[in-house]
Order: sequence, then structure tokens, then C-alpha cells
Amino acid sequence: MTQPRHWDAIGILLSTAALLPITALLRNTSALAQDAGSQLASWNDGPAKQAIINFVRATTDSSGPKFVPPEKRVATFDQDGTLWVEHLIYTQVVYCLERVSAVVAQKPELKNRKPFRTVLSGNREAMAKLSLRDLEEILFATLTGMPVEVFDAEAKKWIETAKHPRWKRPYTELTYQPMLEVLQYMRANGYRTYIVTGGGQDFVRVYSQQVYGIPPEQVVGTATGTKFGYDKDGKPFLTKDPKLLLNDNNAGKPEGIHLEIGRRPHATFGNSTGDRQMLEYTAAGDGARLMMLVLHDDAQREYAYGPAQGLPDTKVGTFTQALYDEAKKDGWTVISMKNDWKRIFAFE
Amino acid sequence: MTQPRHWDAIGILLSTAALLPITALLRNTSALAQDAGSQLASWNDGPAKQAIINFVRATTDSSGPKFVPPEKRVATFDQDGTLWVEHLIYTQVVYCLERVSAVVAQKPELKNRKPFRTVLSGNREAMAKLSLRDLEEILFATLTGMPVEVFDAEAKKWIETAKHPRWKRPYTELTYQPMLEVLQYMRANGYRTYIVTGGGQDFVRVYSQQVYGIPPEQVVGTATGTKFGYDKDGKPFLTKDPKLLLNDNNAGKPEGIHLEIGRRPHATFGNSTGDRQMLEYTAAGDGARLMMLVLHDDAQREYAYGPAQGLPDTKVGTFTQALYDEAKKDGWTVISMKNDWKRIFAFE
Repeated sequence: MTQPRHWDAIGILLSTAALLPITALLRNTSALAQDAGSQLASWNDGPAKQAIINFVRATTDSSGPKFVPPEKRVATFDQDGTLWVEHLIYTQVVYCLERVSAVVAQKPELKNRKPFRTVLSGNREAMAKLSLRDLEEILFATLTGMPVEVFDAEAKKWIETAKHPRWKRPYTELTYQPMLEVLQYMRANGYRTYIVTGGGQDFVRVYSQQVYGIPPEQVVGTATGTKFGYDKDGKPFLTKDPKLLLNDNNAGKPEGIHLEIGRRPHATFGNSTGDRQMLEYTAAGDGARLMMLVLHDDAQREYAYGPAQGLPDTKVGTFTQALYDEAKKDGWTVISMKNDWKRIFAFE
Repeated sequence: MTQPRHWDAIGILLSTAALLPITALLRNTSALAQDAGSQLASWNDGPAKQAIINFVRATTDSSGPKFVPPEKRVATFDQDGTLWVEHLIYTQVVYCLERVSAVVAQKPELKNRKPFRTVLSGNREAMAKLSLRDLEEILFATLTGMPVEVFDAEAKKWIETAKHPRWKRPYTELTYQPMLEVLQYMRANGYRTYIVTGGGQDFVRVYSQQVYGIPPEQVVGTATGTKFGYDKDGKPFLTKDPKLLLNDNNAGKPEGIHLEIGRRPHATFGNSTGDRQMLEYTAAGDGARLMMLVLHDDAQREYAYGPAQGLPDTKVGTFTQALYDEAKKDGWTVISMKNDWKRIFAFE
């Protein structure tokens, strides 16, 4: 499949390359209940696993110098490429492209207009050439303009049935088992786990509790505004407004953390240049901090992309050599999917 | 003191009438630890107290039809006039006006410009005539432009020493004891208590834990953006940006709740027209909902203002007759400060 050019750049309101096969029901892959002995069971012994354990032990040891009081135990996790698969393209982009036909059915005047016509054609060559402005138009048309409850219901229905073309499984099963274990391990040690995603805040909140054990109020993401109004019976409701409030990617990640959490994280996990500022912001705090980056170096079990370390270049979840070098220089830990993860998915 | 004309209208980024006497140290008036017998001890028996108890009992009875599962137990509280005193003028406005001299010291070019010159003059007649644009300029000048840590330190220092002119006590002691008991009572019953304030989110977060037992991540308020950047040593930091992201008043309250919490509250407390939409939004949800409004009808122990029920009119915390009528019609509970509260403050 041809990689759409600009989809990484648009701040990822988003999610789809499109026209991928669909069906099946959502299975609950939520955080595992584990006894102490099996914590981080899907991790191979090595520096990455050890960094996590050392950090948690040090920050929960009330007699030690690195103790972090429970109220300050905030850990933030990027989603796409960090908690679940982001290739071929962000899941939410798939959703948006697949919603186009429903949007056009409601607004037939869009049918012959360019970006919509192109998506409806199914011509992937043409779709790959859509401009940034075209893509934004698709995102706003499919993610805004409806009451929030209508959006929630549409997104929920989709995520319960849509499947990834490679694994033929729901996207919600394509979460990384080692990362689900980290979420659970950190929560068991008093950390509040947050998702801080370039993806749409409302989209991720639809499934975050079920998939990650993370409640909606602990999801920070790219957000448009809403507009309060009344229906014909005088009942108030909120409509999703096509006005970008927070572009929660790159510098927007620490800005979003300040806006919605108001505390600097003590631990942060990411996988791409969109997470760089979040890691820098985390690292700049006093005391013990944990900064980790997932490197997708496992083409066989998942995907291989960088371009760091000579891995294939990509527009989706770019991990540059500069980011890799910054990580090494500043003592952040790079997780090698190939070497550090005993298994990738729960279903393996 | 002459009432500034527009201060209620400006969305209350804010807080001061100014030039009020200053000193003393913050005393911790945080939510009381109470045993079951003394819950709501500062409330007189009556329909308001009963409404709170009935709601909490019904929604925590897992065998009853109104049961609310713990994860959905969200209660939101307006701050100014609901949790603490808002007259003569919002505390944060006092802060902003008192900060003007410090801002001018750093930017002498402002000294002879109108709104700053007027505030520095101390002439209350002239200050009362400042336009909305003038006031916004003062708010942005005193609340933005600095690193978030610098703002936090300045606000913290001020709130520890500033005193209310009537009681000669720190503003943080002018919290309503009955409402502190409600916060504690609801938390003891599994509710997560949030502040949803027209006041500045960053301002309230400085003292919310200490004063109300509410952590910063559970404060939603009027918010400007921040800008991520690096200092000369390459250390990243966030600067408060003079760009309004969320005007958390009126319709902005349900919009802010959706943005930062992502759940509709089951219980909401307010006291003015700025809270109307938050109450309407809460009431529009399914199942058990509790909507309450504090009516300031106690000139002797606190203040009396409406203009509902023939109380004196005010621009600060306006409670109109229309709001009162809506409350009665829709079964919301109006709390009479005079009749429902045995005592107002902890120090009484």
C-alpha cells in the first residue's frame, strides 16, 4: 500500500488508510490481573525491563532518596506505536476514511467535491496524493458536527468490528502485551496511568477503559472544542465543533499535560518524534524520572521502521536517528521490540 | 466600595478589587476528617441537607434502582460563591490588581498606559470605569507571559498572605464549612470531587489540594494556553500564553467538563447564572442527578445578593430570578445560606 504523504504531519486528529476489511466483535484485552511473580512476564531480562523495575522500586521506597509521594505518581503513555500498532496507518485515520461514505450520505453535496470524491473512489494512488488541507477537511467532516453521544456511539460501533488487514483481528487486540503489563505494574504501585496521544481525545476515550484499564478522564489527546446548545425539546447537548483546541503532538504534548493534568509526569513512554517534547519535559523535572521509547525493529512479529539505526524510513511514527541519539545522550531507555519483548500480543 | 462594572462578564480569568490589606500565613483549612456521625454537622436539618443525603444513599446502594457505579461518581463544584466567599470581588481579581505594580516594575513602559496607570493610582472611582478591554489587558498582563513555575510561586506567595478586608483573614479561610463537609462526605462515598470554576485553572490549582482536598488534576477552570520552549541552557519549560483556550463560565462549563473530564457529572453545585448550563447539562443525564444552588441570603453572616427573591442585585455572582424559577421548576435544590447552614466558616 502506498503511504499517504502527510498523515503523520497533521497532528493526528485522526486515523485510516482505508477500505480495510471489517467485522468481528471486540474482545476485552484489558490490563491483566497479575500476581507479583508474573509482573512484566512478557519482557525479556535486560536493561529496559530493569530500568522499569528499578524506577518503580526506587520511587515507591519511602525510606529511599528517590521516593515519590503517591499523589505525584503520574505516568503518561503515547498510544499509537507505543501501546498498540500504528502501521499501516493510525487506526483513527482508518476510521475517518471509512466514515466518509456515511457523511456523504447525509450531505450529498459533498459527493462530487474533491477529497470526498477521491476517498469514495477507493483509488489509493489518488488518495495518497491528497493534500494536508484535503485530509483536514476529511477529519473535520467525520469527527465533528455531531452531538458527542452520536460520535461516541459511531466510534464504539466501528472499533468493535473493524479489523487490521494483516492480523485480521480487531485493532483493540493489537495492543502490546508487554506495555499492558507495564500499565498494570505501575498502577499496582500507585501510579496513575494516562494516555497522552496525538490521536483524538474523544476517539480514544471510547475504548480506553476496556482496552487499557484507563478511564476517560485520564486520556489527553488532540481535541476540538464542543458547543453547548439545546435540542427542539429544550434538552441541552454538546456538539463537536470543528475548531482545534489542542494539537496534542510534539510541543502540544507537554502543553496538553499541563492543561488537563497539571502535574509533570514522573514516567513517560513514547515511540516517535511526536513524543520528544513530552520526554524532554518529563526529564526536566526534579528527582527520579523514567523516559522510554519503543523502537520498532521487528519486521517479522510487527513492523520495522525508524529511520533510526538504519531501519526503513516512515511517515507514520517516525523515530529519527536524532531522537535515538538524544535518548542515548540523555540516559533515556530505548526498548527494542525485537530483543526486549518476549511476545508482542496477548493472542500469540 | 464601588462595584466594578464588567468584572462578572469577563469570564473570570481572574481575581481582585485591590489594594486590600495584606499579611499572615495560610492556615490549612482542608476538608475535615470526620467520622460518620458528624457528617454534614454544619447543616441544619431541612430539604437541602436531606437532598444531599438522599442522593448519596440512593446512588451508593448497589441493590437500588438509582445505583451509580463508582467509576461514574463525578461531582462538580463551582468555586467562587459556592465553596468560598466571592464578594466584594473574586479573589483572583484582587490578585491581578495587586500584581500590577510588580508587572510595571518589570515593564516600565506600561506605567503611563491607561489601565495600568489607573490601577496604580488607587483611584477606585476611576478603576470602576475601566472597560472590559482594559480589564482583559490587566488580566493577561498579570496571569500570562511567565513560566508556569514562576506564576505558581507568585500566586502561592500571595494566597498565603493576602487577607479579606472584612474578616481580616486569609481568603483560604473564607471557605464555607458546610460545603467542605459536602466535599468530604461525597468523597467518603466514592465520589471524585472536581472544581469547575470560571476562575483561572492554574490559579486555583495552586491551593486546591490544601484548601479543598482537591488535587490539581481535578480542577477545571478558565485556561489560557502554554508555549513549550527551551531556556538558554536547553532546559525545556512552559510559558503561560496570552491566548484564551477555555472560558470556563456559562456554556463553557459543560464544554470544559467534556474536555477535561469526559464524563457528565452526577452531582453539581453552583450559585450563579454562570453555573446554569452546568446544572442543565448535569440534569440532562440519565438516572439520579443532584443539582444544587447556594443562595446568598445572609447579609449578617456573609452577604446577601441575588437579585433573585428580592435580594440586592450584584454584578459579582448574579443569581437571577429566572435562575431561581428554573431551579424550582426543574426540581433543583436551592440552599439558603441563612436557613440551611448552621455556621458559615470553620473559625466561627
